[in-house]
Amino acid sequence: MYEAGDVRIEDVPDPSIVEPTDAILRVTRASICGSDLWPYASLEPTETGRAMGHEAIGVVEDVGAEVRNIRPGDLVVMPFAFSDGTCAFCHEGLHSACVHGGFFDGYGTSAAQAEAVRVPYADGTLFPLPVGEDDALTPSLLTLSDVLGTGHHAAVVAEAGPGKSVAVVGDGAVGLCGVIAARRLGAEQIIILGRHEDRLALAREFGAHSVLECVGHGQTLETAIGIARPGGAVGRVGVPQEETMPASLPAFFGNVTIGGGPAPARAYIEELLPDILEGRIEPGRVFDRTVDLDGVPDGYRAMADREALKVMVRP
Amino acid sequence: MYEAGDVRIEDVPDPSIVEPTDAILRVTRASICGSDLWPYASLEPTETGRAMGHEAIGVVEDVGAEVRNIRPGDLVVMPFAFSDGTCAFCHEGLHSACVHGGFFDGYGTSAAQAEAVRVPYADGTLFPLPVGEDDALTPSLLTLSDVLGTGHHAAVVAEAGPGKSVAVVGDGAVGLCGVIAARRLGAEQIIILGRHEDRLALAREFGAHSVLECVGHGQTLETAIGIARPGGAVGRVGVPQEETMPASLPAFFGNVTIGGGPAPARAYIEELLPDILEGRIEPGRVFDRTVDLDGVPDGYRAMADREALKVMVRP
Repeated sequence: MYEAGDVRIEDVPDPSIVEPTDAILRVTRASICGSDLWPYASLEPTETGRAMGHEAIGVVEDVGAEVRNIRPGDLVVMPFAFSDGTCAFCHEGLHSACVHGGFFDGYGTSAAQAEAVRVPYADGTLFPLPVGEDDALTPSLLTLSDVLGTGHHAAVVAEAGPGKSVAVVGDGAVGLCGVIAARRLGAEQIIILGRHEDRLALAREFGAHSVLECVGHGQTLETAIGIARPGGAVGRVGVPQEETMPASLPAFFGNVTIGGGPAPARAYIEELLPDILEGRIEPGRVFDRTVDLDGVPDGYRAMADREALKVMVRP
Repeated sequence: MYEAGDVRIEDVPDPSIVEPTDAILRVTRASICGSDLWPYASLEPTETGRAMGHEAIGVVEDVGAEVRNIRPGDLVVMPFAFSDGTCAFCHEGLHSACVHGGFFDGYGTSAAQAEAVRVPYADGTLFPLPVGEDDALTPSLLTLSDVLGTGHHAAVVAEAGPGKSVAVVGDGAVGLCGVIAARRLGAEQIIILGRHEDRLALAREFGAHSVLECVGHGQTLETAIGIARPGGAVGRVGVPQEETMPASLPAFFGNVTIGGGPAPARAYIEELLPDILEGRIEPGRVFDRTVDLDGVPDGYRAMADREALKVMVRP
């Protein structure tokens, strides 16, 4: 991506092992994330371009000398953050705060909307899958790389659970995965808020125990705080687009807790994978379009225009 | 209080039973709260004045026809918020969100920096004490009305506990009670931040699991978020002085949870009272000056000038 609205497919050198803990992944599926739409709307022009894509499933092609648990030929999920798997935060299950970790796209790392990607800390990052490359579950398994783990994180932070009413702010792929997660955790009532005044009114009337903020605007966070019941909790997973948080006084006087951030998607795979494999959840249904690499620029446009909900990339 | 800096002692009609659930309390001890200093610094001129004081111990003089558990002659703690004791929030232990509740001072209710005060929902609000009017524990018991419960709330919301390092932002009475609360909950290391750069640097280096925001400024909340460890929690109990919360991005990318609000002081009395009665904690040591009613205006001045830490009022 060279600036807002300008996505190009280019031939670049193949990635190769740099650190002995690296792996090279041949990408079999990637996807475009709602968070990719923020730079697509606002990226300042850059001469070097920014490699894009942080959600992938792929086959391991090569591993560095210190990689122990991942082998060439493995089909793996690549979570959107890499993590060493050994630091205090990884041990606590907060892999997205790994002291050696980072996010895939951006500058300086290769990225997933490509034929191949270099994965740092392969042992701590990648998660082998017990299925074949073209399994029917592939779309659902791909959501383990980000949107399902992210919706689950919002639900966990917001304390969704039995007896709770849960509001989900945002009806994108993460919001829909938030609904899956809230139901999976046993929530009694789930309300999803899109761009419909009547849903908002309903949610406000209800007074949700748990609110999942799955957008990232100040306005949606304000809605989330406003519809939370006193003592309720907001889990925010939409990447914030402003420096400050709104509604400090309503949050304070309602004793509303605001938490969340980048999901430790790697940590959640173990918990969520069996539900996909055994057919209890079908998060892959958020994908409503598939493109090849050349189709990626139009995939961005389609998601930005809300013509597509979520786009899968098949390099 | 008629405007910022203008506190007057006036003769007003005695309070009397208005609702059958009321009680009239003869105030034996009241105090000036750090939060009283916000209007003392900024209150716009008002012709009617604003009754002040929300922390008290007193003797019940009269009760309405529907009061069942509180009797004339009882010595009681009056928490800073009144609460019916029967609604869903009171049952959940969040009395400060009671659907019929409210705060004592302000406009329209009588207040505690006085000889007597009308207490709505006496059964749900007041807590009888098993000591005499002039017991040596009185200063500590008085802190149950606000500052001890408030410091405890910050510690609970911030998840202070065994193995955790806790930073307390603010070295006023609430901050000091936050230290008591964090130690009581088993925190392994406690750092208090006052106006000393070296303490701030130490805390930042440490990376606290739990941070208690006991001031209420945007700047102190920013400090609290900034020194929290990834995955840590901030409990804020200082009444916010701004409409927005700072540091949205650092809080998000650190997965830092921000919670808190008015403490359910009434709910916490049962848990905290035995520790005072049995001498395990001495929160009354936050009081370093006692005045009579005529001394209240100078008490405000002394606290605002940081000449006194916290002022007790003995009407």
